[in-house]
Amino acid sequence: MDTALNLDVKSLLREGVELTDVNLEALIPAPETVPSSIHKAMRHSTFAGGKRLRPVLVYQAAAAVAGAVPQGIGKLGAAIEMLHTYSLIHDDLPALDNDDLRRGKPTAHVVFGEAIAILAGDALQTRAYEVLATLDCPPAATVEIIRQIANATGTVEGMIGGQVLDLEGEGSKPTPESVDAIHRAKTGALIRVSVVTGGIFAGATPGQVALLDTFGRKAGLAFQIIDDVLDMTQDSAQLGKTAGKDLNQDKATWPAVYGIEQSLRDADRLIGEAFVALEPFGANAEGLRSVARYLVERKS
Amino acid sequence: MDTALNLDVKSLLREGVELTDVNLEALIPAPETVPSSIHKAMRHSTFAGGKRLRPVLVYQAAAAVAGAVPQGIGKLGAAIEMLHTYSLIHDDLPALDNDDLRRGKPTAHVVFGEAIAILAGDALQTRAYEVLATLDCPPAATVEIIRQIANATGTVEGMIGGQVLDLEGEGSKPTPESVDAIHRAKTGALIRVSVVTGGIFAGATPGQVALLDTFGRKAGLAFQIIDDVLDMTQDSAQLGKTAGKDLNQDKATWPAVYGIEQSLRDADRLIGEAFVALEPFGANAEGLRSVARYLVERKS
Repeated sequence: MDTALNLDVKSLLREGVELTDVNLEALIPAPETVPSSIHKAMRHSTFAGGKRLRPVLVYQAAAAVAGAVPQGIGKLGAAIEMLHTYSLIHDDLPALDNDDLRRGKPTAHVVFGEAIAILAGDALQTRAYEVLATLDCPPAATVEIIRQIANATGTVEGMIGGQVLDLEGEGSKPTPESVDAIHRAKTGALIRVSVVTGGIFAGATPGQVALLDTFGRKAGLAFQIIDDVLDMTQDSAQLGKTAGKDLNQDKATWPAVYGIEQSLRDADRLIGEAFVALEPFGANAEGLRSVARYLVERKS
Repeated sequence: MDTALNLDVKSLLREGVELTDVNLEALIPAPETVPSSIHKAMRHSTFAGGKRLRPVLVYQAAAAVAGAVPQGIGKLGAAIEMLHTYSLIHDDLPALDNDDLRRGKPTAHVVFGEAIAILAGDALQTRAYEVLATLDCPPAATVEIIRQIANATGTVEGMIGGQVLDLEGEGSKPTPESVDAIHRAKTGALIRVSVVTGGIFAGATPGQVALLDTFGRKAGLAFQIIDDVLDMTQDSAQLGKTAGKDLNQDKATWPAVYGIEQSLRDADRLIGEAFVALEPFGANAEGLRSVARYLVERKS
């Protein structure tokens, strides 16, 4: 891998999107495969213009360990993107956030109905684990990757737990404790585990896994803080989703508790702390640093 | 393991329930674990008096291979029961079958609301894979067990695919082809994979896995045919769920296509064929034979 290329975050992101999409295309059954409605729904939400930030973190974390993006890692990136997409489909359902627009497109339940949207979310989760069970790495590493991902997307300090805390908190005033718990679980855990499992796939030592875990925790929280700030300051066209929703729903967001200025400072501080954990990786982590910088400087 | 005990299907089923429930109790977070609503919902549906037939098939398939139920297999039985329970919670949702009663108790969405019911189903699937990733067997066997289970619960000839075919078929006249495809996918695949993964856990050879696969396919179809017959001939109190629903919803069932008498004959024939695949296992498969006989002779 060319280090100069790594420093150019735009090509690095574009390469990450390409690697992810070619894998997703191959791994999600074709739209005409019976029963076709479910495969069309899975594809509708998966290919809706997502930025594939979690897969990019997978690839660059692996490069930090191995010195280059390893062969075969696209399946891991694709599986994590399937899990992210499943959570979005279910989060958007009428019984949850009731959102009709996501990434600038109508959500799955608007196009395919609630029943197929529920099952399409279920199926993306199932397919993610089937894909993970075919990863081209030692079986013990595969098992550890699956365990870490299931834990990070579960109910105890994981993604589903964060969704529940978020639902339960609606209508009550967000506190520093509630916003921190929700952010760490709902978005932070999947970002953290993207970095950690990318490292495990690349053969990281336990010490390297611990450093990537620290980096992932801090970068994941910074990412969500910026997401909250963008929700308050951008319009729907810029975001590709309904803007200002968090405030309207009394959601626990970082700027709602700390204000926009402090939120931006917190995100910067967290990225700085995240970079400290990457020091032992030296130049190999340049790609991961570029992506982390992009996460806090992006405008959508 | 005492073979005389194996022949007594009632104690064999009771021991299977006990082994499964003690594992489920330990593996699903306690009801007071934050966020508590999701853990209460997961437990409500999991501990609603299910017969644990899939776990019992896991244990007895393992015994057919190893000569006795292996240590540590309760986790595999519990994980498969979590997957079965997740599919029931989502199947009962208002957007799908809209059923208020299951195993004689109000369904999850009636008690906890739709949002928590959707997330509780999601979480049982997630937790199942986390538990599978901690199985006490060689990592290569664990990976193969996860791959097989994800495949059998997926969209292509798996459980979710069967749910979609079932939904899409409502209101149109069931045909031999449609009822066969739905039964094989919706219920058959998970029963088949229970038998197959029990064997893999116990160290089955590829030849033994193929025999268990054949047995599981035929026994799974016989089980579903009997389920359909019971839905038509028993009342709700006997079944613990709303009786006659299939007919009211124009569901593709075996007796709707072939009549009750022919359905009972088909179930008997399938069990006979399933037993042929067990011959090479000799006396070790006595428990599996007892359970299969029970599947076609049960009254609820």
